[in-house]
Amino acid sequence: MTSRSQPVRSRERDERGNAGVVYAGVRTLRLEPIVPAPPGPGQVRIDVAYTGICGTDVHVYHGDMDGRVHPPQVIGHEMSGRIAEVGAGVDGWQAGEPVTVMPLDWCGQCPACQAGHTHLCHRLNFLGIDSSGAMQSSWTVPARTLIRLPGHLPLKDGALVEPVAVAVHDVRRAELQPGEKALVVGGGPIGLLIAAVARREGADLVLIEPDPYRRSLAGQLGFTACNPADPSTMAILQEWSGAAGAAVAFEVSGAAAGVATAVDALMVRGRLIQVAIHAVPREVNLHRFFWRELTLLGARLYHREDFEAAVALIADGQIPASALITRTEPLAQAEQAFLALESGAGVMKVLIDCRAEQEAGVER
Amino acid sequence: MTSRSQPVRSRERDERGNAGVVYAGVRTLRLEPIVPAPPGPGQVRIDVAYTGICGTDVHVYHGDMDGRVHPPQVIGHEMSGRIAEVGAGVDGWQAGEPVTVMPLDWCGQCPACQAGHTHLCHRLNFLGIDSSGAMQSSWTVPARTLIRLPGHLPLKDGALVEPVAVAVHDVRRAELQPGEKALVVGGGPIGLLIAAVARREGADLVLIEPDPYRRSLAGQLGFTACNPADPSTMAILQEWSGAAGAAVAFEVSGAAAGVATAVDALMVRGRLIQVAIHAVPREVNLHRFFWRELTLLGARLYHREDFEAAVALIADGQIPASALITRTEPLAQAEQAFLALESGAGVMKVLIDCRAEQEAGVER
Repeated sequence: MTSRSQPVRSRERDERGNAGVVYAGVRTLRLEPIVPAPPGPGQVRIDVAYTGICGTDVHVYHGDMDGRVHPPQVIGHEMSGRIAEVGAGVDGWQAGEPVTVMPLDWCGQCPACQAGHTHLCHRLNFLGIDSSGAMQSSWTVPARTLIRLPGHLPLKDGALVEPVAVAVHDVRRAELQPGEKALVVGGGPIGLLIAAVARREGADLVLIEPDPYRRSLAGQLGFTACNPADPSTMAILQEWSGAAGAAVAFEVSGAAAGVATAVDALMVRGRLIQVAIHAVPREVNLHRFFWRELTLLGARLYHREDFEAAVALIADGQIPASALITRTEPLAQAEQAFLALESGAGVMKVLIDCRAEQEAGVER
Repeated sequence: MTSRSQPVRSRERDERGNAGVVYAGVRTLRLEPIVPAPPGPGQVRIDVAYTGICGTDVHVYHGDMDGRVHPPQVIGHEMSGRIAEVGAGVDGWQAGEPVTVMPLDWCGQCPACQAGHTHLCHRLNFLGIDSSGAMQSSWTVPARTLIRLPGHLPLKDGALVEPVAVAVHDVRRAELQPGEKALVVGGGPIGLLIAAVARREGADLVLIEPDPYRRSLAGQLGFTACNPADPSTMAILQEWSGAAGAAVAFEVSGAAAGVATAVDALMVRGRLIQVAIHAVPREVNLHRFFWRELTLLGARLYHREDFEAAVALIADGQIPASALITRTEPLAQAEQAFLALESGAGVMKVLIDCRAEQEAGVER
């Protein structure tokens, strides 16, 4: 959990220690010096503190998103930091304030925006994917993307706001009611955060996760976590949901088997929240959707209110932030962290300490 | 459109002309004499007038539903008739009243019933599938299944109430708003009825249907009907829905390609209503569900209010009943009618004239 910043070669940072992790092509990340960009009108420049590595970042690393990410490009979008400079025309923000960023920049003109679904903008600029991201010591963004963090909130926890906002959005899509049984299929960071948010809403939860480390962590957080490969799992689910089935299933695994498990678990009029990204079409038992009048709801990203709710949940101690942050690595160790996440073994959330060299290694 | 009753062999009816169409095994229907069952307590006996052939009946004929239909069994569930006898304890119904039947008998005890979704009862007895059906001159059913028909309504039209109730239920599941664009994928009887009900709700409709006869009929009813095999269809849909896409798609085709068409057509937050039965799992583009936050809603059967709304729509002339009834055949011609429906060519809804021999052939 400690920041283990190590000396970095000087060519990787500028004279003030500014650097960023650049996606340079398939399976290639480079630490490069960056020049902090002065904020233009309506922009702010942030001194980034921590940036978490998201599953999507790993997909970028694999080259799966080369249609959107154009190397060399700084990646990352789960972050916290402090405002360094405020551009012209930006009111209500001051240097030094702790912030995170909702990394969405929408057009406001397309049918999705016009219908009020700005997070689904047809021309969405997702900061850190479609444009320069947060895994750098200095990041300049539109002021309207800022989300205020409470002064007492550790900045490491602040880097979790974005994935918590995803979980808040997913649970809202489910319209989860207190006492409802909810199955979470997939116990990675988003699955555990969904479970934490759903528990807060009063749901009766079971998780399904094949990885023993993740199941163990879920258990430490007070969740019932089952191994889908274990023959007793069906009996546990049956005992849990009785003859009815679960009211809600969150599909967070991205696996074909996860979809089948979620569909099979649902009661009449049950809701399946499709959170994970499936790069290929999946076989879905549409007969069961018909037979039980099930609902499948795709859930993507978040609204501002989801971000604000996420900040409140973290600040209120409802999210096991420290337990989820497996470790924090310096900018220079980013690629190793990606490799560790890729293997998936014994790791949940990894943060990158993005602070400029003179500050790095100082806990705050 | 005329009733072309033909002489039937006497062994196929009892001395009063009572007979029923019995499913006797895969691809075998038999006309057999029946003995009208006196209504027990809480039951009524109906002199059946007309029974429509549903796509589900064709599945029964093919043996696809042998797990539920146990030969020899009278099939059929889209019907109209008049009350013949009223059993003990049945109030509010009198002999001679025109009725149809909502063919659902639920347990009241299972989780679905307890949750108020009686039409999804885990132990549902669907009359005409799980127990004896309406394709016979006399049918004895629980009084609670009765739905009153207006005296002025032609009984042929009354036989369409059940499929119209399906369409009403499907449109309700869609929560269709006036002016919304809705795509109907599949232009058979249910597809056309959905279109008719959705038009009544103010939807802006396009149908997709490969069969030229069905497209032609849809056109006569005032609908835009496109051929999915026609290269210009994509351009027509694009022109119709603009850059946004459709708000709703009804998947009534039961085909893999129909699912893909429906998913691809939807705008952000669009709703796909899964009406058709897919006997095998289908590949579904779950990424698009995620990306556009689409909703898939399974829709099955109906509630009593759907039936009552269906009666009102038909009585109000909102459903093109006569146009949809391709022809009416006598009981003895039932199997030939099934074969015609199986081929699908030039036929929409076929009614069987179920009246006892002495009445058959008399228009009313």
